[in-house]
Amino acid sequence: MPMNRQILLAARPERAPGPQHFRLAETPVAQPTDGQVLLKTLWLSLDPYMRGRMSAARSYAKPVEIGQVMEGGTVSRVEASRHKDFAAGDVVLSRAGWQEYALSDGAGLRKLDPQRAPLSTALGVLGMPGMTAYTGLTVIGQPKAGETVVVAAASGPVGATVGQIARIKGCRAVGIAGGADKCRYLTDELGFDAAVDHRAKDLAERLAAACPRGIDVYFENVGGAVWEAVFPLLNDFARVPVCGLIAHYNDAELSGGFPTARLMRAVLTKRLTIRGFIVSDFMAHAAEFARDVSQWLREGKIKYREDVVEGIENAPQAFMGLLQGRNFGKLLVRVAKE
Amino acid sequence: MPMNRQILLAARPERAPGPQHFRLAETPVAQPTDGQVLLKTLWLSLDPYMRGRMSAARSYAKPVEIGQVMEGGTVSRVEASRHKDFAAGDVVLSRAGWQEYALSDGAGLRKLDPQRAPLSTALGVLGMPGMTAYTGLTVIGQPKAGETVVVAAASGPVGATVGQIARIKGCRAVGIAGGADKCRYLTDELGFDAAVDHRAKDLAERLAAACPRGIDVYFENVGGAVWEAVFPLLNDFARVPVCGLIAHYNDAELSGGFPTARLMRAVLTKRLTIRGFIVSDFMAHAAEFARDVSQWLREGKIKYREDVVEGIENAPQAFMGLLQGRNFGKLLVRVAKE
Repeated sequence: MPMNRQILLAARPERAPGPQHFRLAETPVAQPTDGQVLLKTLWLSLDPYMRGRMSAARSYAKPVEIGQVMEGGTVSRVEASRHKDFAAGDVVLSRAGWQEYALSDGAGLRKLDPQRAPLSTALGVLGMPGMTAYTGLTVIGQPKAGETVVVAAASGPVGATVGQIARIKGCRAVGIAGGADKCRYLTDELGFDAAVDHRAKDLAERLAAACPRGIDVYFENVGGAVWEAVFPLLNDFARVPVCGLIAHYNDAELSGGFPTARLMRAVLTKRLTIRGFIVSDFMAHAAEFARDVSQWLREGKIKYREDVVEGIENAPQAFMGLLQGRNFGKLLVRVAKE
Repeated sequence: MPMNRQILLAARPERAPGPQHFRLAETPVAQPTDGQVLLKTLWLSLDPYMRGRMSAARSYAKPVEIGQVMEGGTVSRVEASRHKDFAAGDVVLSRAGWQEYALSDGAGLRKLDPQRAPLSTALGVLGMPGMTAYTGLTVIGQPKAGETVVVAAASGPVGATVGQIARIKGCRAVGIAGGADKCRYLTDELGFDAAVDHRAKDLAERLAAACPRGIDVYFENVGGAVWEAVFPLLNDFARVPVCGLIAHYNDAELSGGFPTARLMRAVLTKRLTIRGFIVSDFMAHAAEFARDVSQWLREGKIKYREDVVEGIENAPQAFMGLLQGRNFGKLLVRVAKE
């Protein structure tokens, strides 16, 4: 009997997740009943938001319960189907989670065309991270030609897409990333105008030098020291779409940062717009996103990079590294060969 | 020779302004040359933003220089004209500042029709404070029927207008003000659904009780303890137009408030919009404002209250009181009889 290896949430981390917070389980692969399909996971996406699901703190989505399979987006293949809309061999975008097999009643599955683009891109540049970048930047950021757009975690799938779209819109794109290799990648491969290493002691000075006309759009997915360096450089009427705060995900108390009064004074005097969003808030823009980014990919105006880990058993370690910026590009687990 | 009494900025306050920061000067009234008018001040508006003009700190407008006349909006009468567009007797909205007379080349003057509305309303409900309320609430706040709108300094000209427009839009309007008299005025005279005294020790609990369905729009003109009480009550997708922070205007260091990381986490998880604005950013909405608010005034849907001080020499003391919430309604100096 084939077995399904799963990664379960074993305990809630207070700070950085460790191996003790995950558990590898093996259960027999279940067979679909009427109206169900059996999915085999090909690709599992690992994303920063998953840290939030490990905590019980109030957020925009329910936490994973202790003993449950960790949640996550997947590219999966239909192994067996008793559902009229799906046939064995179909490849679908799914939320099957951190496991090798899953049953589904078809809800939320989206068929993928392997001829259209590499399947893994449905979890990256053509998926949730790409759409986060596209909608946050265009709907909230509203970049105008000649403006300066800054994004952190810039070699990741969201940041890299933000910077390249900013370039397409005629903006100066400045990326912040960890280490010389990632910074070189931003300027030499992706065409960013400048890149700044957030590990540099003089981050604030380097960022100021990279943004001689200040910052008009700061795409916030990091928080912490990067936000502190960005904040004084924001221009009048700057826009700050906020889709993540990875620097704080392992904070127990959220004690970081300058006093709110200073922030609010700048909001007032500079007339800043700070707005949080989740990609699902912008589903109305999904078709426009798919059209534009697919075209930019075909034209070579947007590139992407993947960081692939092999085997579901290695997902926890890879995820821990993600929270420390150890990945280089979109982090994926190849759970099974396509 | 008639004399012009003026209030000059004598020194920059570090914290609360005192009498030592102002100086009363008398100079001969100048006569207009070609292209000029001589204005006599009838009404001087006193507004919280003037505290910012007394400081050298960067803001959205230049500071008043030491020895200069304090800036301010006025309703003035043309005493003598050598300008083709103005005749003696015309009444104009002007920025003549804290003085009894001023010369003008006509730039920025707007003629007022004394038949249309009481002249002083051009400095209040039909002027800058009213337009601040209208544009901030409608453009940024975007209140929908059934939502809860909270505003502080609610018996002032901005707050009172915000609350009454919120009611017109079908919202629950909750006002925060200092003292029982002001709170009674909000509910009994202006039709707010609830009023909360910010001096109450259990402000947070009282506000929570007044907002059983949370807060969808918080019109921010105060900051400080009120903001701390409002913040946890903000609903998902809440909007926070920020037009003032009077609680912080006398702070030297802006050290107040919870850590920014906590604020940004709420921005993200609740998808808040926090946006600063100055009324002049929304000049495109001036005609719409004048049309709507004039009509609501005629229909009795919007009321206003004025707190009148007599004589330019009393402007400094009245302004100091304004920063401590001692006024009750729109604070005006009657500099000369209409």
